[in-house]
Amino acid sequence: MDLNSDLGEGFGQWTLGDDDALLGVVTSANVACGFHASDAAIMARVCDKAVASGVAIGAQVGYRDLPGFGRRFIDMEPEALTADVVYQVGALQAFARIAGDRVRYVKPHGALYNAIVHHEEQAAAVVAAVVALDPTLPVLGLPGSAWLRLAAEAGLTVVHEAFADRAYTPEGTLVSRRLPGAVLHDPAEIAARCVAMAAGEPVRDVEGGELTLTPGSICVHGDTPGAVGIARQVRAALTAAGVTLTPFATA
Amino acid sequence: MDLNSDLGEGFGQWTLGDDDALLGVVTSANVACGFHASDAAIMARVCDKAVASGVAIGAQVGYRDLPGFGRRFIDMEPEALTADVVYQVGALQAFARIAGDRVRYVKPHGALYNAIVHHEEQAAAVVAAVVALDPTLPVLGLPGSAWLRLAAEAGLTVVHEAFADRAYTPEGTLVSRRLPGAVLHDPAEIAARCVAMAAGEPVRDVEGGELTLTPGSICVHGDTPGAVGIARQVRAALTAAGVTLTPFATA
Amino acid sequence: MDLNSDLGEGFGQWTLGDDDALLGVVTSANVACGFHASDAAIMARVCDKAVASGVAIGAQVGYRDLPGFGRRFIDMEPEALTADVVYQVGALQAFARIAGDRVRYVKPHGALYNAIVHHEEQAAAVVAAVVALDPTLPVLGLPGSAWLRLAAEAGLTVVHEAFADRAYTPEGTLVSRRLPGAVLHDPAEIAARCVAMAAGEPVRDVEGGELTLTPGSICVHGDTPGAVGIARQVRAALTAAGVTLTPFATA
Amino acid sequence: MDLNSDLGEGFGQWTLGDDDALLGVVTSANVACGFHASDAAIMARVCDKAVASGVAIGAQVGYRDLPGFGRRFIDMEPEALTADVVYQVGALQAFARIAGDRVRYVKPHGALYNAIVHHEEQAAAVVAAVVALDPTLPVLGLPGSAWLRLAAEAGLTVVHEAFADRAYTPEGTLVSRRLPGAVLHDPAEIAARCVAMAAGEPVRDVEGGELTLTPGSICVHGDTPGAVGIARQVRAALTAAGVTLTPFATA
Repeated sequence: MDLNSDLGEGFGQWTLGDDDALLGVVTSANVACGFHASDAAIMARVCDKAVASGVAIGAQVGYRDLPGFGRRFIDMEPEALTADVVYQVGALQAFARIAGDRVRYVKPHGALYNAIVHHEEQAAAVVAAVVALDPTLPVLGLPGSAWLRLAAEAGLTVVHEAFADRAYTPEGTLVSRRLPGAVLHDPAEIAARCVAMAAGEPVRDVEGGELTLTPGSICVHGDTPGAVGIARQVRAALTAAGVTLTPFATA
Repeated sequence: MDLNSDLGEGFGQWTLGDDDALLGVVTSANVACGFHASDAAIMARVCDKAVASGVAIGAQVGYRDLPGFGRRFIDMEPEALTADVVYQVGALQAFARIAGDRVRYVKPHGALYNAIVHHEEQAAAVVAAVVALDPTLPVLGLPGSAWLRLAAEAGLTVVHEAFADRAYTPEGTLVSRRLPGAVLHDPAEIAARCVAMAAGEPVRDVEGGELTLTPGSICVHGDTPGAVGIARQVRAALTAAGVTLTPFATA
Repeated sequence: MDLNSDLGEGFGQWTLGDDDALLGVVTSANVACGFHASDAAIMARVCDKAVASGVAIGAQVGYRDLPGFGRRFIDMEPEALTADVVYQVGALQAFARIAGDRVRYVKPHGALYNAIVHHEEQAAAVVAAVVALDPTLPVLGLPGSAWLRLAAEAGLTVVHEAFADRAYTPEGTLVSRRLPGAVLHDPAEIAARCVAMAAGEPVRDVEGGELTLTPGSICVHGDTPGAVGIARQVRAALTAAGVTLTPFATA
Repeated sequence: MDLNSDLGEGFGQWTLGDDDALLGVVTSANVACGFHASDAAIMARVCDKAVASGVAIGAQVGYRDLPGFGRRFIDMEPEALTADVVYQVGALQAFARIAGDRVRYVKPHGALYNAIVHHEEQAAAVVAAVVALDPTLPVLGLPGSAWLRLAAEAGLTVVHEAFADRAYTPEGTLVSRRLPGAVLHDPAEIAARCVAMAAGEPVRDVEGGELTLTPGSICVHGDTPGAVGIARQVRAALTAAGVTLTPFATA
């Protein structure tokens, strides 16, 4: 099983999350590329450390919106979005190459991640960027999203991710953050769910039924001290259950 | 002989220079990379058109200063500058690759260009970026600059450029723009000087003596309608003189 | 009658429109405030010249999106939008004061202008900013918009604007730019319509019927050489018809 | 005595320092204005809280350099710098006014602070901005700086500040941060020095001699948890010594 998390989300003088701690936990690092967070110096450092830690480097692409941290939908033209994604991935490719590896997957961030669940034009624009950059580059996302459907239709390798700390509906979609119970907080419960997912066993959905998720990667968070602790507990539980942790993208 | 010029120097809604006209004149395009000018959509377009025109793509890297167009010296840390250059070139490499070619050289812009004539630490920082990116990537610059000296010491291929419309001192340095006569305006004179340079013959220095420049590339401007006309006249004069115009970086 | 137009829409090295020419035509200048266009130096210059020309200074506020020129809807939180509008108007107030006048009205730009025709939360956010800044500050906008309705409910002075070069539906709304005939191009026709509007006489709607608009200000464009010519013709026609041109906001 | 500190130095999603804690310690808040740190929403919040806490609001102006946090010298034109300072102060004035107070002083930040100790042209440019904005606005800075000298010559009220945790040379200048002992770390020693300064008594200079500083304000830091603790200790020691803590700028 693969564990992915967002890294490199500081900017200039500002820090966010504990990249060093996370690199000891995850197997895939979604590295921000400077449009919603990160800058060139941060990308260089994170790529160097990720390679030293055996963690796969993914491009975490977002809207060009540092003031909004990429969390605000921007109604931009598809052609411009395609170019913005190419730009971000291209920049990260240089740092990954210099660090001795390469960008191994693409995962959109924040409002872009959410938009392309349904927004066909923007989803197609991100797919077009990946196809143009490298049609062998896998993409990571939400099962059932327009993003993964269009990526698959375009011949890209799609990888489903599940969220360690999010509640699911019986249909397998995420419970909205606006509803109570959307985010799980009990580390033991979160870790147990991840072990079940990795074993192909069902977890409880929000209504108490059984739901079998078969993710190619599990997303953990690291932007608070508590989050890093939970991520560590997830890793420990998976390891204790005999699950091998390894990047999904190593080909 | 090679003719180089700055391209892709618009930003978003704003345009600067006539990229399409210049692509019919020059053999090497110094494409701005989004830090002092340009954006992803512009870079995509310019790369596509440059490849279609047989014009070599170079990375025109600058300080991160859109409000100042990269024309203001920024006293930044060398490590940060190295990372900023890697970021810019990496982004352009993606667009060049998608357009069917690759980035063939690096030329700093504006205040960075001027700073690294003398500023050893920043010059070394830019050299370090190119070495890390690709030690076979040629660099373009001013003869006698710290930038080209350190680049050569690092094993990079250095290419000297001359300016079509600038007056030179007897020592072969540029006459300061603050002095009268620093910039030439007569198209016929400018064209004749370029023909002399291409033939290895001397031109007049600012004091009336003879000065032999042996540039690997001649820089022409295109940011005004008049400038494009002069650039066209330079190309016509060189062609009429039997000079073959071809990118310096084609290996 | 008042003629308004967008000014100060350059950025750094980049120019857009002919501010000097427009200041000889309009009576109210919608000055960009640095979020979608303009910068501090441009704002200083435009304010100085507007005061010298007897042109009223209005704050043209937009989304924080220089790469998109404020033409892309951003789904931002109302509180953040209120603060962004306060910031922009506050900055312009300083330049207007130094130039010897003050900001006399607020007019949203681009995607924000369009969004708050219908987007109640964002409209209320912009209204809240104006109320907080100065409840005597008039606001300029589209009749029938949420923006003007909420502004009026909040006690602000609302001023309706008409567009010199746009076709209207029989209901008095703008014909979508995606439809043929949405934008008028004949200078004589445009000028004649403006004279009719100023006289309180009807103009032809897009279906050939009569439509009486009673704008407090007519918006003309200046971002192309042709546009400036049309604006001049509008002014000349109004003057020839005996219409006094004067800023709507002079109290 | 007045205690000043930098506040509002987050940006978007990123935080820096503990503004709430500092507002319980200082009497003057140097509020960042969005060019090197802060944004409109942060400025609104800090101004509201400062007024509620009885803390004076000052404009902490810097170079337009979010990626560098205003800590990199930018060799910009004086006219552009003047405009950039006006813009920043103007924006903050709006938030201060809405919060029920006004901007009571100006203090440059980071590389600008350091530059205008010696850089006459940039110092004059910042002075020109304050004079244009409001010639009754006091300015805060380093004794002996070009900034305060030119401000005084221009008729501005100048206020000297001392640094609670910095070592001084016998001449009363700051010991360079590159030298050992430049920054003091012992909270008790720092507090005792501040009490001495407030009483007009000498402190030890870096060579062991006596140096009498008579600051109008003492600068404390708050960007680390330890720094806030030291600031609290300074305030407690001053209060215990019978020193009344009150903003220097209350006229």
